[in-house]
Amino acid sequence: MKVSIIGSGNVATVLANLAFDKSHTIVEIIGRNHEQSKVLAQKVNADFSPYKSKIQPVDVVIIALSDTAIASVIENIEFNDSLVVHTAGSISLNVLKNNCKHYGVLYPLQSLNKNVNHTPEIPFLIEANDAVSQNKLLSFANTISNNVQICDEATRLKLHTAAVFVNNFTNFLYTQADNFCKSEKLNFNLLLPLISETANRVMAHNPSTVQTGPAKRKDINTINKHLDVLANHHQMKSIYNFLTKEIMEE
Amino acid sequence: MKVSIIGSGNVATVLANLAFDKSHTIVEIIGRNHEQSKVLAQKVNADFSPYKSKIQPVDVVIIALSDTAIASVIENIEFNDSLVVHTAGSISLNVLKNNCKHYGVLYPLQSLNKNVNHTPEIPFLIEANDAVSQNKLLSFANTISNNVQICDEATRLKLHTAAVFVNNFTNFLYTQADNFCKSEKLNFNLLLPLISETANRVMAHNPSTVQTGPAKRKDINTINKHLDVLANHHQMKSIYNFLTKEIMEE
Repeated sequence: MKVSIIGSGNVATVLANLAFDKSHTIVEIIGRNHEQSKVLAQKVNADFSPYKSKIQPVDVVIIALSDTAIASVIENIEFNDSLVVHTAGSISLNVLKNNCKHYGVLYPLQSLNKNVNHTPEIPFLIEANDAVSQNKLLSFANTISNNVQICDEATRLKLHTAAVFVNNFTNFLYTQADNFCKSEKLNFNLLLPLISETANRVMAHNPSTVQTGPAKRKDINTINKHLDVLANHHQMKSIYNFLTKEIMEE
Repeated sequence: MKVSIIGSGNVATVLANLAFDKSHTIVEIIGRNHEQSKVLAQKVNADFSPYKSKIQPVDVVIIALSDTAIASVIENIEFNDSLVVHTAGSISLNVLKNNCKHYGVLYPLQSLNKNVNHTPEIPFLIEANDAVSQNKLLSFANTISNNVQICDEATRLKLHTAAVFVNNFTNFLYTQADNFCKSEKLNFNLLLPLISETANRVMAHNPSTVQTGPAKRKDINTINKHLDVLANHHQMKSIYNFLTKEIMEE
């Protein structure tokens, strides 16, 4: 298919590369950031340009912009008959309604970062405003992923919310542990095998069945030792207290 | 070396199997749970017995019991010249002082479960009461792991505390997401690639540099959408509010 991409950040870069690798023709990279758009366009053999009102006709235009930028950027663009999709988990399909005839959502339920060397498995949640568009989007998505689901807006928002727990909040706990190790001159790398194992284990086991630790055991003695260790780490102590209480109440 | 193990639970089972696989002789499995001790002993070609006062002389006795059981179980055992080590992250070396001549700690900084088919990488934090014991324990630990560190009690307790964040608390967040998916009839498996990627990413990147999400962006609009989704999930909403506030204050 002929594909153009609006945006040149993490999502734009990962999706452009994926589509290019699967032999789609990337026609244009249209971005605010001249240097980033140019670098990406060169990599996927595409034209590049700043935001503009007329874009070349293609099969799919992927809008990979921040949630807040989507509406204002597209209102000045004529899409004609192209299928236009955005990639945002918590934004309605209808943000595209006034400017596009055929439109949809292509939401990657994954944390995408252009500076990470490997491409992780990406489940895509898709929807579109009509059956023809949905089939076209499904065909496209199936070329770049083995895990594509048709998913309405409410369900997508629920999965986006759950993703915050397993990605943003989890990474925040890693950050707390990393900061603690730095300040106590401990080697954070010693925790990496445990981080791997904790994640790997839920690939095959229900997480509630593998919950362990002093909070789960209601082991007040160990909890108090940990709180002593955290005496001078106020934020971490507060998180420890809060989550320990939540686990004990389960 | 000749090794005996007191206990027959998760840590006992994983360490017995590891030592057996590395051609150590497992002499006895000594456990309260007759059936579990028997099963483990048969697997590693060892004798088994209930708790008793005289054990056969060996190079290393590994006490793999719950924190609270260690002191009471060992006070009735004669260890003679064997090196006796416990495996607890938050218990002092000195719990062994009154009953043992040579003693130490062999703490696996990993979540061990005998029902998990693979054996993860296990960093061991070790210490002992004298140089000869420490060298013996180091030699033994190096046969079952490529990641052995000599580590004093205070440092071990700090790493044990950090481990709660990256293992117990992280798994609790996975559990929240899993429960939410069950109650909303969503497929939790859709989140597994994201869970993997979140963990994998900190293998090569500082976690604070890869923090993303609405809290990090202070994106109140998306946060409010998520809170609406969680309106009937009180515990999850409370965790969302708490961690979002903590991330925003970073």
